[in-house]
Amino acid sequence: MKSIKFSNVRLNDGFWKAKQELNRHVSMNSVRKRFTDTGRIAAFGCDWKKGMPNEPHYYWDSDVAKWIEAAAYILTVSEDKELEAGVDDIIDKIAENQWDDGYFNIYFTVSGEKRFTERNAHELYCAGHLMEAAVAYYEALGKRKLLDCMIKYADLIYDIFKEKRCAAFATPGHEEIEMALIRLYRCTKNKKYLELAGFFLKERGKNDKDWWCAESATAYYCQDHASVYDMETAEGHAVRALYLYCGMIDYAAETGDGKMAEVCKKIIADIINHKMYITGGVGSTYMGEAFTIPYDLPNETAYSETCASIALIMFAERMLEAENKAEYADVIERAMYNCMLDGISLDGKSFFYENPLAVDTHKRGRNRSTTIEQHIPITQRAEVFECSCCPPNINRTLATIQRLAYAVDGGAFIVNQFMASEAEYNGSKIRLDTDYPLSGKMRIQTENIEELRVRIPYWCGKITSDTSYTEQNGYMVFKNARDINIELEMKPVLVAANSRVRDDRGAAAVCFGPVVYCAEGVDNDDVYSLSVKRGGRITSEYCEKIGFNVLTAEGMRKAESDNLYTPLDKLKTEPAPIKLIPYCCHANRGESDMLIWLTTA
Amino acid sequence: MKSIKFSNVRLNDGFWKAKQELNRHVSMNSVRKRFTDTGRIAAFGCDWKKGMPNEPHYYWDSDVAKWIEAAAYILTVSEDKELEAGVDDIIDKIAENQWDDGYFNIYFTVSGEKRFTERNAHELYCAGHLMEAAVAYYEALGKRKLLDCMIKYADLIYDIFKEKRCAAFATPGHEEIEMALIRLYRCTKNKKYLELAGFFLKERGKNDKDWWCAESATAYYCQDHASVYDMETAEGHAVRALYLYCGMIDYAAETGDGKMAEVCKKIIADIINHKMYITGGVGSTYMGEAFTIPYDLPNETAYSETCASIALIMFAERMLEAENKAEYADVIERAMYNCMLDGISLDGKSFFYENPLAVDTHKRGRNRSTTIEQHIPITQRAEVFECSCCPPNINRTLATIQRLAYAVDGGAFIVNQFMASEAEYNGSKIRLDTDYPLSGKMRIQTENIEELRVRIPYWCGKITSDTSYTEQNGYMVFKNARDINIELEMKPVLVAANSRVRDDRGAAAVCFGPVVYCAEGVDNDDVYSLSVKRGGRITSEYCEKIGFNVLTAEGMRKAESDNLYTPLDKLKTEPAPIKLIPYCCHANRGESDMLIWLTTA
Repeated sequence: MKSIKFSNVRLNDGFWKAKQELNRHVSMNSVRKRFTDTGRIAAFGCDWKKGMPNEPHYYWDSDVAKWIEAAAYILTVSEDKELEAGVDDIIDKIAENQWDDGYFNIYFTVSGEKRFTERNAHELYCAGHLMEAAVAYYEALGKRKLLDCMIKYADLIYDIFKEKRCAAFATPGHEEIEMALIRLYRCTKNKKYLELAGFFLKERGKNDKDWWCAESATAYYCQDHASVYDMETAEGHAVRALYLYCGMIDYAAETGDGKMAEVCKKIIADIINHKMYITGGVGSTYMGEAFTIPYDLPNETAYSETCASIALIMFAERMLEAENKAEYADVIERAMYNCMLDGISLDGKSFFYENPLAVDTHKRGRNRSTTIEQHIPITQRAEVFECSCCPPNINRTLATIQRLAYAVDGGAFIVNQFMASEAEYNGSKIRLDTDYPLSGKMRIQTENIEELRVRIPYWCGKITSDTSYTEQNGYMVFKNARDINIELEMKPVLVAANSRVRDDRGAAAVCFGPVVYCAEGVDNDDVYSLSVKRGGRITSEYCEKIGFNVLTAEGMRKAESDNLYTPLDKLKTEPAPIKLIPYCCHANRGESDMLIWLTTA
Repeated sequence: MKSIKFSNVRLNDGFWKAKQELNRHVSMNSVRKRFTDTGRIAAFGCDWKKGMPNEPHYYWDSDVAKWIEAAAYILTVSEDKELEAGVDDIIDKIAENQWDDGYFNIYFTVSGEKRFTERNAHELYCAGHLMEAAVAYYEALGKRKLLDCMIKYADLIYDIFKEKRCAAFATPGHEEIEMALIRLYRCTKNKKYLELAGFFLKERGKNDKDWWCAESATAYYCQDHASVYDMETAEGHAVRALYLYCGMIDYAAETGDGKMAEVCKKIIADIINHKMYITGGVGSTYMGEAFTIPYDLPNETAYSETCASIALIMFAERMLEAENKAEYADVIERAMYNCMLDGISLDGKSFFYENPLAVDTHKRGRNRSTTIEQHIPITQRAEVFECSCCPPNINRTLATIQRLAYAVDGGAFIVNQFMASEAEYNGSKIRLDTDYPLSGKMRIQTENIEELRVRIPYWCGKITSDTSYTEQNGYMVFKNARDINIELEMKPVLVAANSRVRDDRGAAAVCFGPVVYCAEGVDNDDVYSLSVKRGGRITSEYCEKIGFNVLTAEGMRKAESDNLYTPLDKLKTEPAPIKLIPYCCHANRGESDMLIWLTTA
């Protein structure tokens, strides 16, 4: 299966077009402004000196690189001279300040620290993101200045790491460069970048003792606990891990390394079956921002980083191409409508780094008795973070979101995600009209498509179609159909977690199609006293303000009591409607308690 | 209200006599043997030198002192020459190694470190426990050797801390000496010890900046966040806190300091209403072994130290005397039948330090991705701990458990706890026959008691009595009754926690009288897949092996599923009986999953 490039798909008026436009006209500017205000963009001038404000941090290159990459995608499909000029300015600074031998890194240029000595200083990670930006910008406008810079830098890295092995470490502390190098290879056709990616992948697991990081010293943290060929489970820092897995499956795709592909299959199964929140969030603990053990999915303290759900989408997208399994498209859908969108406010201006599944405003400032504080995520989105990886990651994801819609497989044309859009590929044409995810109704018109496959989403029980189809591997398969009307039955459903997920025991989440709902305090007072009625009525109503349906469920409310413990038969409860909004829309009306998993009555 | 001393109450055959006999004949020897093996007893010779095994720790004095105190209580009511000789040996060593000025501490005598320089080195805590042992031993046998040593030591402490103020700190890092000094005052009638106790209490909160402790640097940890008069809530290290509160209410009782008594009332209300597990455990986090915020009562990671529940009993016992409130006797009952007894194995030989309310054996070795590990308590009792405060604390508590049974208030005689026993006080006699806690049936015979008050326990809905009574402040009040037959209706009840206790949402605990039950994996396979049926039948059967009723409840079991998330209406469940044993009996048949809070169906 091969995805159809975002530039071959045009979003029409609908849910995702609105999100993409907001990203382009608001979020991109908002991130750029904050990056300007915090000195991130000026830092590319590499003229910071001790005593000056805005001391560069070692991940700043990557923050801006992701924003450039997003800009490149926007410029691929539409002209914007001002945006282009802004990007060119930064690229000029990179070219000016690139070292003679090809090295470029803001932090190591101005800090006076020795380059390639500190494995956890994100140098190769920054390099990777700059390479991705360079390829995207070249592909967008044909401008090669940044690409040439990054080719020179990649050549230097090849020389230092692979040829001379004279760096203080052998593989990146934060992965990313592996998939970037493969992208550079795909763009330049220069095999040495593929080779270098393979080198970084295969050296992993050999060097767990040669570095130390105060924050998280273990090898698991940075996926150095095993050779990539011996990995079986998702481990350590979730974003690092998933970027690694992306590199691995890219490498397998380019080289036919079946053993590496098998490892990726095991790992994604581990994530899907044991380590993924109902929101598509992953990485359940802030300690090392990491994957933990199976079924360890706490809600209130969930780390569930926005970047990790984006990285999960990227990994699942690659696995879908490699394996043609509808299940991977389900994972993408789960993450894109829930955790990923939760990462950005409805006005497009602010962002969540962490996406917990419950908020308890009473827990602010807890554990004052102790010095080691239990980490509780922030409750309101922020415009920028000290480590601001998530905002530009959302920028680049929303700029290309339609890349997830369609694919081809041999002669077959595939609909993976449902977006009001049209696409063209090799003379085949498709047009999909839908108000998804408000309903499961869609009309699909095709030209020159013999076999059309339409994914049957995991949440869907009943399908109505005016055109006959067969089912195959999780897809409806239509033959020579030109105009199809389908309805995927979409209704509010109570979903339970596996009983091994201790934190969701006795509780249910209300879902409507792919969208996970939550109860916020601002609508429901004390959400913790509510139970949703099993088999109760749940009504749905469109809310223009948020662009989603809001739900009202039959529920019960426990009367407030001063007692810690009360016999069940003496508990007072009364019927109470529960107002539910999409999880991704929470925290847009001030700080409020929030719950996805409601106890059932 | 004034409790009747343990030595005026004789336990008859029944639940508590069996526990007390086991303590005397097994646990006392077991603890003594382990204290011998680990060098704790030999350490009183103060001849340890660098390079020798069994380097003394700075809390060793207190471990052994509590065991001596327990021995003293046993010797109060029965002769045991061998036990007495063992205690005398240790006392001889203390007398031999006491410094000329009265100082005694194993660690500071052999380590070469300067005494009274390190606030967190438990010197005053050790001194307090030695004083308590001294008073107990003097009261038991009239032998004053240890008492004289401790009087000399107390005089030195008075001089150094109160007169000269030449120690490096002003108040103990670990409280205990406050109540010990008041006990010494009560025994010797020397007011300076009461004065010194008052000094330590009132200096608290003034010196939060003059020490530092690597483990937990905050003032809350050691109750230095406020003046004792400004405290309103239970804060910090739970055992330290509760020992402080015991000292405070003792001081209030001796001096009539009403303001301090008011603070104690506020604090115990905070504990009862916000910070106490259903088992009577307190101190919910291992981080600082501390109280946290209201309703923060996690089950699996509960610290709930055995010593803390014993300290809660001690505090509640004092509050009961001060305030005559049946509620405080309820707290004692909750703690004594659950958390405290959980601290010791059924064979009397091994102990829990922490008493979590859930065990998940799959979580061993969790979070390998991170360096900061989430603390999960051990799952099997141990014979001794590095810090072995809990085992001898159980020894001294079980040796005097009948002290909790009766009290007098003016002319009234009061039954607070129900134990098969007889007591005499000031010419009044009482005999209580009961198989409590197996049933709520009891016969009470009295002589020369005009007014008899019998506590109505918190768990009891219905009372049958062959003798008329009135109700007053949580007590049945009988006038001039000589032979009373009462039945407190005892049946299995599902109990819910306050909806603000997030960790118990949607769940219920099965209780039978004062006893909290749990489901163990060894009886039920995967306890996490079980739900107990609301309104379902629960049968009870006596089990001789554990000396308790075991219960079988109607329940449902979720079918095992590989899926993380499943619509509720597609979940497969089937009826399954749930076998329940008393929580305090768990972990006596090997490592096993365990749950108190069961989801309800």
